[in-house]
Amino acid sequence: MFNLFWADEGGLPANDRGLAYGDGLFETIRMEGDRGALLSRHLERLVRDAGRLGITLSRSDLYSVFGDASARFSGRFDSHSWVLKLTVTRGAGGRGYRPDPRMKPSLLVASAPMPQMAPEAGVDVDFSRVPLTVNPLLAGIKSLNRLEQVMAARELNDSLFEVIMSNSEGYLLEGTRTNLLLKTSQGWSTPPASSLAVSGVMRDWVLECLRGRGEQVVERPLMPEDIIGQECLGLYLLNSVLGVVPVRSLAGHDLPVDGGLATICNLLETLE
Amino acid sequence: MFNLFWADEGGLPANDRGLAYGDGLFETIRMEGDRGALLSRHLERLVRDAGRLGITLSRSDLYSVFGDASARFSGRFDSHSWVLKLTVTRGAGGRGYRPDPRMKPSLLVASAPMPQMAPEAGVDVDFSRVPLTVNPLLAGIKSLNRLEQVMAARELNDSLFEVIMSNSEGYLLEGTRTNLLLKTSQGWSTPPASSLAVSGVMRDWVLECLRGRGEQVVERPLMPEDIIGQECLGLYLLNSVLGVVPVRSLAGHDLPVDGGLATICNLLETLE
Repeated sequence: MFNLFWADEGGLPANDRGLAYGDGLFETIRMEGDRGALLSRHLERLVRDAGRLGITLSRSDLYSVFGDASARFSGRFDSHSWVLKLTVTRGAGGRGYRPDPRMKPSLLVASAPMPQMAPEAGVDVDFSRVPLTVNPLLAGIKSLNRLEQVMAARELNDSLFEVIMSNSEGYLLEGTRTNLLLKTSQGWSTPPASSLAVSGVMRDWVLECLRGRGEQVVERPLMPEDIIGQECLGLYLLNSVLGVVPVRSLAGHDLPVDGGLATICNLLETLE
Repeated sequence: MFNLFWADEGGLPANDRGLAYGDGLFETIRMEGDRGALLSRHLERLVRDAGRLGITLSRSDLYSVFGDASARFSGRFDSHSWVLKLTVTRGAGGRGYRPDPRMKPSLLVASAPMPQMAPEAGVDVDFSRVPLTVNPLLAGIKSLNRLEQVMAARELNDSLFEVIMSNSEGYLLEGTRTNLLLKTSQGWSTPPASSLAVSGVMRDWVLECLRGRGEQVVERPLMPEDIIGQECLGLYLLNSVLGVVPVRSLAGHDLPVDGGLATICNLLETLE
């Protein structure tokens, strides 16, 4: 089990390892009233990736907290849409970095208003100047170590929706809060999951959704010239709160915009 | 200025970015009564590295908090020695990863009992199986993104004092909570500051201290064979709370132990 904290009643203890070391992970879930989009995928990823960090969580306990949270927070917002955030940490205490194996995890449950939706006509995106480093042991985990994304997000402004981060070899990996999906005449491609800092549940679901329709989908390293070139039929940003976001320009280069993917893979059809 | 929080009165707000993203940094200072070892170096590094993250701090405000903290906490511990921890975050709120530039930083002030000293006869150390990745933009900063160190510290046990982490090229970088210093017949060597995840104030001071005595000190990449070989006259772990810690064995290989460095560079002679 975990120690449960409600964000509207206060924060975690001062010596929680989430603050001290980013020793934990989180999920942000798009809510419509008391139902969550891609809910089971979010909770399964949380249990699985917590396990990779050595933090044991019970899926059924998380469902029970979800039930309480959706009853507690839905109706508090002007909009039917809102965001539920679950933050799990290894708990409080330990001997410096070294955790105590008997430690009880902390679960902080918070709600937030729905962010502004991206325009259907597409968004403007640039390359980030902040390199992204991925530890193979932590690849894909939405951990609380997100300082690189924060530094990159400082490059955003009200007309720049997202920046795309690359590794030291120059391969495009992901946005600060989105995964990438490219459409070409050969089909769909996306950077390999093993190369990613955060491998999103929206990405997983969209890939499955496309494969289920018989579309060609490959995971392969992407370079800037794969997108800014004749081959590109569309670039999409994937985020489990905002859904499918088409890109209309990358670093000043216009890209073709096609709203079809957002219709095929409609996040709001995944409410549970 | 910052919003000041005392750990003995409670934690940070639930939406603080330190917890959410590890968006901040920290210092741990060895205290003797109301005096701190390497105090001005700690506070200068905190101001400088916060600046690298885009967080503005005032040195004089930090000194003022230090005065209040040393009066508040000294005398609370059985031992004259204790540890003062200063955690600075970018503050609470923002739009996801994207900070609000008008945000006020948070400063959390905490105290902890002095950890057990390392035996003078030397400690046993091993190589970590956890690789260390260092983003050049964040190199050296004691940020709140320390999940790699936590994962490596899970390899420690009561007879294993430290593990040494390497980058993907196989170069030895640092321990989970210590920097490395090697003595050979050619002089002293230590991995370059630009390659380190955390570049400690103890490391800086010891290098200066040795150079001030006319010793030969070089920053160069270190490989395991540089230590486990005929050349090694001593391996030292440097930590600003524990001081100079000689290593008596690395991955089962006995190393020569010489307590001289701990006498030459005595942390307790730096109290301010």
